[in-house]
Amino acid sequence: MSSTTGYGAPPSAPTEDFEPSPRSRVKRLYQRGHYDRETVYAVLDAGLIAHIGYVIDGQPYVTPTAYWREGDMLYWHGSAASRMLEHVGEGIPCTVTVTHLDGLVLARSGFHHSINYRSVMAFGRAHFVEEPEAKMAAFEAFVDRIFPGRWAELRPATKQEVKATSVLGMKLDEASAKIRTGGPVDDDEDYALPIWAGVLPIRTVVGETIPDAKLRPGIERPAHLSVFRAD
Amino acid sequence: MSSTTGYGAPPSAPTEDFEPSPRSRVKRLYQRGHYDRETVYAVLDAGLIAHIGYVIDGQPYVTPTAYWREGDMLYWHGSAASRMLEHVGEGIPCTVTVTHLDGLVLARSGFHHSINYRSVMAFGRAHFVEEPEAKMAAFEAFVDRIFPGRWAELRPATKQEVKATSVLGMKLDEASAKIRTGGPVDDDEDYALPIWAGVLPIRTVVGETIPDAKLRPGIERPAHLSVFRAD
Ligand SMILES: Cc1cc2nc3c(=O)[nH]c(=O)nc-3n(C[C@H](O)[C@H](O)[C@H](O)COP(=O)(O)OP(=O)(O)OC[C@H]3O[C@@H](n4cnc5c(N)ncnc54)[C@H](O)[C@@H]3O)c2cc1C
Ligand SMILES: Cc1cc2nc3c(=O)[nH]c(=O)nc-3n(C[C@H](O)[C@H](O)[C@H](O)COP(=O)(O)OP(=O)(O)OC[C@H]3O[C@@H](n4cnc5c(N)ncnc54)[C@H](O)[C@@H]3O)c2cc1C
Ligand code: HEM
Ligand code: HEM
Repeated sequence: MSSTTGYGAPPSAPTEDFEPSPRSRVKRLYQRGHYDRETVYAVLDAGLIAHIGYVIDGQPYVTPTAYWREGDMLYWHGSAASRMLEHVGEGIPCTVTVTHLDGLVLARSGFHHSINYRSVMAFGRAHFVEEPEAKMAAFEAFVDRIFPGRWAELRPATKQEVKATSVLGMKLDEASAKIRTGGPVDDDEDYALPIWAGVLPIRTVVGETIPDAKLRPGIERPAHLSVFRAD
Repeated sequence: MSSTTGYGAPPSAPTEDFEPSPRSRVKRLYQRGHYDRETVYAVLDAGLIAHIGYVIDGQPYVTPTAYWREGDMLYWHGSAASRMLEHVGEGIPCTVTVTHLDGLVLARSGFHHSINYRSVMAFGRAHFVEEPEAKMAAFEAFVDRIFPGRWAELRPATKQEVKATSVLGMKLDEASAKIRTGGPVDDDEDYALPIWAGVLPIRTVVGETIPDAKLRPGIERPAHLSVFRAD
């Protein structure tokens, strides 16, 4: 796959900012809101798991799902028989939220405690990626986004597997990011109090790889895992 | 606060399993579904951030929010002027999803790649915790769930702060957990292939605390942070 602009979608890679609407303009602590693609994409690209919101018969659902971005498209996948994919792929209103927890913020009052975070909410309607070749390209992009170069080393996907798998795409037309960084912000008079305040940074790390118990002898940890430093 | 059963709610602590309905019964890979309170509560208690799903004018929203559990109640908080809290507190249908990413599962085919995870979806309707004393007890529970004993050391909350803050409670009446653990499960014939397979464990860790730049000299890292081992 050489295209990075989507599977059959027009090769558009808009760089203009998102235009916040009443639906997507950050109102609470609005200074933390961002609508430029660079910021929104950076938050999306730093994550693996989204929470997809959709409504069936008036009932909201929130489904955790792996995703990836290419250009101005967001993609996710699963079983062709998945309730979430079946409904969302029809193009019903859908919200995709991606969240990074970066730290706990301890202030001198309860009220000023907070969390450092980066998050994105994207609003849109998804569609099925229909063509088998396009689905195959999507699988490659998905696998190689996490493990660069791994796709070419794998047992190729079968026709049956392609058929059993749905891939959904959603154009990134409307999105907001909200980001908090830094230390606590206390009331002026509270700085005099003998109370510890500061930040407890939080991050997500990978541990030592666990080779499959049935791994054939002599197969080394592949180079495409070197992007994951255990620390 | 001595009660652990909720703020004015009857002191119920049901231990019977959740009763899955068509809405909450895991269909895809149903063996990964769990409906006992012990499992659901363990997933909830291991997390800090939920994704709250709700609908306003037909539009689904998914809002990342800190939460805590007491007995069979889930709580979260924010500004009394928050759109999410204002709407969800009215008792509209609401879904709370909590997700832990535990590992990447590398198989010999793309199709059998997966993720180790623990997640919960809870369905219900929330209400406002109204009484100032109950809200105060909720703040204490919230702060002390993360930092045991910290509440008593803080500058007490003011009436104005209590008024400016909404606390929502949702009874845990219907919920499912879904959990994947272990290594890849490949097609029989694929085990012969010379392809690396295994698990890349993922976990969330805290780093070294960053004292506030304006911290008064001589204030040590408090004992209630010792639950957070930096590693
Ligand atoms: C890890 C984490 C923990 C949080 N914990 C809490 C908490 O405990 N209490 C609390 O009140 N808030 C919390 N927040 C902030 C929360 O997500 C909302 O921003 C806040 O509750 C305001 O909600 P609202 O409905 O009033 O937002 P509004 O400002 O009215 O939302 C309007 C629009 O702004 C955008 N927007 C709002 N929030 C976000 C967001 N987080 N990311 C991207 N776009 C957004 C969306 O487009 C939304 O439709 C947390 C956020 C994160 C990421
Ligand atoms: C970190 C993570 C990453 C995931 N990545 C993917 C992915 O990339 N592709 C994919 O297809 N699936 C993924 N899943 C699983 C996904 O959450 C759904 O379980 C799956 O997509 C099936 O969706 P469905 O709508 O068909 O579920 P159904 O089985 O039809 O859902 C019926 C009911 O089962 C319960 N349920 C379903 N899923 C969950 C859950 N995760 N946690 C708790 N209860 C649940 C709910 O009550 C739901 O209403 C992931 C899950 C996690 C936690
Ligand atoms: C460990 C304790 C706490 C944590 C981790 C925490 C975390 C947060 C976070 C992350 C937000 C969202 C900020 C944003 O939108 O960017 C928030 C909002 C808020 N919190 Fe807390 N909080 C804590 C305790 C409290 C307490 C005890 C009170 C009340 C006394 C309180 C009152 C509020 C209010 C009013 C808001 C809304 C701010 C706004 O949108 O204008 N918090 N809190
Ligand atoms: C890095 C690559 C991949 C990852 C991390 C991944 C992850 C996942 C996860 C977490 C699930 C949910 C399982 C559950 O419900 O418990 C899933 C489901 C699924 N995946 Fe993937 N996947 C990857 C690649 C692929 C590829 C390339 C294909 C197709 C060739 C595929 C096909 C499927 C199908 C069909 C399901 C639905 C299973 C079911 O519900 O019965 N996946 N995947």
